[in-house]
This record gives sequence, structure tokens and C-alpha cells, in this order.
Amino acid sequence: MNISEIAKRAHLASIQLASLNDEIKNNALISIAKNIEKNLDKIFEANRKDIQNAGNINSSVLNRLKLDENKARDMVKGIYDVAQLENPVNKVLWKKEIDENLILTKITCPIGVIGVIFEARPDVISQISSLAIKSSNAVILKGGKESTNLNTLIAGLINEALDTIEEFPKGAVNLIHSHEEVKEMLEMDKYINLIIPRGSNSLVKYVQQNTKIPVLGHASGICHIFVDDKADLNKAINIVTDSKTQYPAACNSIETLLVHKDFKYKDELIDAIKKEGVEIIKNPDSWSYEYGNKTLSYKEVSSVNEAVSHINTYSSGHTDAIITEDNKNADIFLNSIDSSSVYHNASTRFADGFRYGFGAEVGISTNKTHARGPVGVEGLVIYKYLLQGSGQVVRDYVNGNKTFKYKLL
Amino acid sequence: MNISEIAKRAHLASIQLASLNDEIKNNALISIAKNIEKNLDKIFEANRKDIQNAGNINSSVLNRLKLDENKARDMVKGIYDVAQLENPVNKVLWKKEIDENLILTKITCPIGVIGVIFEARPDVISQISSLAIKSSNAVILKGGKESTNLNTLIAGLINEALDTIEEFPKGAVNLIHSHEEVKEMLEMDKYINLIIPRGSNSLVKYVQQNTKIPVLGHASGICHIFVDDKADLNKAINIVTDSKTQYPAACNSIETLLVHKDFKYKDELIDAIKKEGVEIIKNPDSWSYEYGNKTLSYKEVSSVNEAVSHINTYSSGHTDAIITEDNKNADIFLNSIDSSSVYHNASTRFADGFRYGFGAEVGISTNKTHARGPVGVEGLVIYKYLLQGSGQVVRDYVNGNKTFKYKLL
Repeated sequence: MNISEIAKRAHLASIQLASLNDEIKNNALISIAKNIEKNLDKIFEANRKDIQNAGNINSSVLNRLKLDENKARDMVKGIYDVAQLENPVNKVLWKKEIDENLILTKITCPIGVIGVIFEARPDVISQISSLAIKSSNAVILKGGKESTNLNTLIAGLINEALDTIEEFPKGAVNLIHSHEEVKEMLEMDKYINLIIPRGSNSLVKYVQQNTKIPVLGHASGICHIFVDDKADLNKAINIVTDSKTQYPAACNSIETLLVHKDFKYKDELIDAIKKEGVEIIKNPDSWSYEYGNKTLSYKEVSSVNEAVSHINTYSSGHTDAIITEDNKNADIFLNSIDSSSVYHNASTRFADGFRYGFGAEVGISTNKTHARGPVGVEGLVIYKYLLQGSGQVVRDYVNGNKTFKYKLL
Repeated sequence: MNISEIAKRAHLASIQLASLNDEIKNNALISIAKNIEKNLDKIFEANRKDIQNAGNINSSVLNRLKLDENKARDMVKGIYDVAQLENPVNKVLWKKEIDENLILTKITCPIGVIGVIFEARPDVISQISSLAIKSSNAVILKGGKESTNLNTLIAGLINEALDTIEEFPKGAVNLIHSHEEVKEMLEMDKYINLIIPRGSNSLVKYVQQNTKIPVLGHASGICHIFVDDKADLNKAINIVTDSKTQYPAACNSIETLLVHKDFKYKDELIDAIKKEGVEIIKNPDSWSYEYGNKTLSYKEVSSVNEAVSHINTYSSGHTDAIITEDNKNADIFLNSIDSSSVYHNASTRFADGFRYGFGAEVGISTNKTHARGPVGVEGLVIYKYLLQGSGQVVRDYVNGNKTFKYKLL
């Protein structure tokens, strides 16, 4: 089947999915979880094959790629967890009588077909598929080529499980394989309603520049901490080191440290950071470079406003934090920073769907429309308006025979 | 000032606007309304000049272009009405304690800079500017060239009024004039966060195809009515004629009538529609043609499911209605139609922000993300996450020293 056929079938499936009740969706998820549990041996085998094929890879890539017993258990648990989530579609957002027997309802509904391009992590395919099923969306998935064997096996197990649920439409979960197919997918704006690229800056930028379909995600994570002159030294040391060194490659790790020039403990702070193996760069070539390692750009500023202005210019709009004991400065920062997550006295590493308590996340978005910050299943739904009348026509209201009432129900 | 400078200045203004309190915004709106009221003579004069320059235009264009006393009064009232709306930004959507003294708040905030391209209606510029100010967004406006004198005058009056409000940032409301400038504006994805084109299909399509900025709107309005075999004839006649003839050029007027082949009163329905001057086309060249006049495509179908399938294939996702006394069929239709507004026994002409009770609308969207259907001021806001802690770091939760609590406040 070519991409256009896959996309068209997914679109048709998505319309059937929209009116599927929650019980059927949960049965589908439980059936998937059981089929994965039953086939863990095959899954480990496929993962071993992928690792073998990967050849010489460094230990951090190997760690990410390898599916161990713990990750497998979490993967299965994750599917059961999604089944437990509240049904995100068919939720009445509000209902009002706009006139007698003329009821307007705003109700959540699925987006339709979602294309997801993700990196080589073995647990992503079941997670994204589960979230899509729970939110009544069809998906077209493209995984990292390093996980080809595993992804193909798991996509097969998912569809095998879905086939046992009679009411579940065919073609809701699809896996594609090549870069060429991704290129074609990005042109399917007639059938695909949202693209979520999860991966490198260059992947996200490529997707953003090559599709008319809305894209949800973030190209880069240029996060900042501003240490105010009214900061507590211990909090500053703790938060800065956590935000830089706890997982330097993460998008929510900081790249730039701004320090108020009058902060009394500047030297102590810098010494403590350096002790954690962080290299400090005082005049970087660029203020919007994402190191992804233990390097940190450093600048002194004269005020919270100068910090705000620097951050609003160079931040990628992901996560930025102030450290201060002065609530007025904290408020200026929280109000004025134009990023999806803005923090006071907390590590930027908290910017994550699981830590925010969303249960699961489809990614982190730096968009200014639709969904922003860590995106849970709520980001996979939209709404529609239902109007239920008893024969009403507009000319009666234009002529003045009738007037609207607007009573919230 | 060139477009890039206008856009950059608007972006900076938008950041200041974000932390402006509601009282200042309302003062700004009242000041604008007063300045427009004070200068109505000049406004009528500018409108006369525009009409003169337009030369030979037909009466419907003239009607749209002409600002009479009534429209001018509504225009001013519209600004006061927007000031009365609830402040759409800084609204707490939810607040939760994710651990002791670690509070996560989801709060609404402005989108940033919005580019609006609109048709030649004299009241649009003040309406869009008011909605932007109320929602703390900066705007770059491009009006129809037929209203150049009027738009330039009103934009000037708006900025004159804003200049009297000390706290209000400069450069929040901008008017541009040429197609060349629009082209440049569409490239300013660094500074502009949303484009709203209001106008012809070709304008909207041009915008969608020539920008990386998210676009909110609808290219076409291919709306349908399905008359079920269980329909009430009088309701059917009333609703179909209203939906087609009350304002045939409107985007929410119907283009196609689907009738159940077993509907007993088919002939009576067709006769009644024809009596209203509607021309019925039984085998149109295309099922997705927007007539915009009293022409109506007609098709008989064998079931509600066939009607749903036809509509989901050819509808533009704007507004579609079923007429039936059978609630089961109505439910199938309401659940299965993939459009932004789906109706039962009501005219499609109700699909409008004012009729939905939104106070004012920025347009109607057929998008599947961000905002859908008639879009009020809510479509001009997004949200951000604020995390307020007391020194918390992620390593404590990863190490198991601490666990998240998640208590909704």
C-alpha cells in the first residue's frame, strides 16, 4: 500500500474512531497490552537484532536503544495507564440554550489523523499508539531506523490485537519505514491533520519547512536560569547544577546562566557549578546555541528586566527559570517571559509531561497555537459545535421576530 | 518603517502587552471608542472618498463598503462591548500542587503578534483591533484596498487614542497597505505567530500556501443539509430555504442538498425551494463547488450513513445539518460528521460568532487544531505553565528521595 492509500484509509478509520465509545477503546488497549506481554521474548529478540545491526554505537545511544526488563514492564504498564485515563473525547466543554429549544454544545472530538516521526526509543511506538487510540485518532508512525525490527514487530502485535476487536476500524495504526515515505506523508495535508516530530533539531526543522500540515513540537531547547541578586545561594547551586547536569542532553536542560551583577555569591556559585564538571563560556559566539552537554554560556546582567529581555530574545520558548527570594522580581519574570514553562525557584528539568502529572506525553511544544509546553492526551483533541434545534431559521432573528436568550445550561 | 521593523516592534510590544492589566486595556478601548465617535464626520468623509474611488461597483459591494449611521453606531458600540468582555488572559485554567511548595499553574496568555488580512468592510478594522487589545495581542492589519482612506483614518485614530494611555506599548496596532507588504509579512514567522485571512477563497489559499506561520480561517464554505426520510416537511422547507436564500453569498449558506430517496414529500420540498428562486442542479460537475448564489446541488441518498459519507468527502468542514424527527439518525449524524459545526433541525446560517453568543468574532475556522468553528476572543489566547517552587530539583525525584503528590488546588 502506498502512502496516499495508507493516509486515505487512516482518514476513513479516524471518522469511525470518532464515534467509538470509551469501553471499546479500553478493550483495544488492554488487548494490545496483553499481546505485547505475551510476546516479550520475540520483542527482546527483535531488540537484540536491532542492536546488533546498529554496529558500533556509543553507550548513551545503546542505553536508549536497549529494551531491558524494566523498560518492557514500564512499556506494558504505560498502555494500561492510558486505558485508565479519562476519555478525552465527547467531553461537554459547555452547553447553552441560545433560544428556546435551540441548544448549542461545545464538545471535544479527535483531531483525525496524526503523523508521528520519532527517535529510536523502543517504548515510544506503544505509547504514541495508545494515546492515539484513547483520543480516537488514527496514526501514521515512522520510527528511528535503528529500531526497525522492534517497531515492525510491535506495530504488528498492536494490529493483531486490534483485529480481535470487531468494532475497531481497520487502518487506524500504521507504520511506515523510509525517509521517502516521510516525504510523501508530509504532502498528505488532505488526509493528515497534525504532524508530531520527536527528535533532533534538524529533523524538526526539516518537517516544519516541508509541510503545510500543522506541526507540534520543538526544534530546540535553549533554556535559561536567571540568578537574581536576591537569590539564595544554596537554592541557586542546587537548581543550576540540576538543570545543567542531571541530564545535559535533555531539551529542558539549561544552556545559558544569567547572573545579576550585584549577586554577592557569584564566585561561590561559579565554583560550585564548575565542581560538577560544567565548563563556563563567558563570551559565546552565539547566545542561542544548544550545547546538549556540560557546557554553559554565562552572562552578567544589571536587572531582572535585562534578564527578561535577553531571554525573550534568545530563548527557544521552552523553559526558563528565575532564582530569587524577591517575590516582586519573581512576578515580573513569571509575567514577562514568553516561554511555554516559566519557573520560580525550581529546576528547568521539571518541564515534562510525566512530571506535570499528565500520565503520558506526546512531546513538548514551543508553538504559540493549539498546544504548548508538555503535551498530554489533551493536545490530541479539538472540539466541535453541535446545534440541536426544532426548526429554527436565521431570518426570524434578523427580522426581529425572535431574539437570542443565551442561557448557560 | 519596513515590514520587518514593524513586525519586530509589534513583537516587542506584544511582550509588554502580555503583562498589562485589564483596566489599562479597557481604558485604551474606551479611549479608542471616544476618538472614533468624536471623528465620525471625518470617517464618513473618508468612506465617501473610498466609494468614489471604487467607481462602478454593484449594489451588493456598495452595501458592504458603505458606512451608514447605523453601521457607525454599531462599530462604536462594538468597541465598548469588547471592553465589557471578561479578561481572556491571566485566567487560571487549573492549579495543582505537584509536591509540597511546588505549585504548577496553567494560565492563559496572549499568542503574541497576529496578522489579519481582511475584506473591504468598514467595521472590521476597529473590531479586530479591539479584540487584539482585549486579548493583549499586537496586530498587523491589511484591509481591502477599496477601504484605504477609511482604514488609514481609523488606524490613525486608534493609535492617537492609544498614545494617550501612558502604559500602553507603542507599535501594538499597525496597518500595512500593499500586496507586496502582505507577501513580506507572511515571511515574518520569527515575529508573527498567527495569520487570520478573512476574504475570498483565493486569498485564503494564497495565504495558506505562502507562509510557515499558522493560519486560522476557512478557504471555502461547502455546507450541506441532509433531509432524512423521517423529516418534517415544514421544518425542511423552512430550514433549507433559510440556509440557501437568507444570504446566499455567506460561507455558512448551503451548496448541496441531500435528500433521503424514501422521503415522501421530496416533490413538495423541491417545489417550495424553487418557489424561492433556487435553481436545483441534479448532476453537478463537482460536489465541492461553492456557488455563493441561489444555485443548489441536489442528490438523493439511501441512508443517513450514505449522507454522512458524502458530506465527510465533499464538505469543507464548516457547517452541515440533518433534518429529521428520528433522534437515532440525528445522533449518528451529529457524531459522525467531521465538521466544525454540526446541526440537527436548525439553519446552517446560525454558524456565526455573534449568534453563538461570543460577542465578537475574529473569523470562522475549519482548522482541526487550535480553534475551530466561529472563533471569538478565546481563539486569540494560548496558555503557559508557571511552576513556583522553593528550591526543588529533579534529581531528588529520580533518586527516589521525593515523590510527586499531584493535588488539585
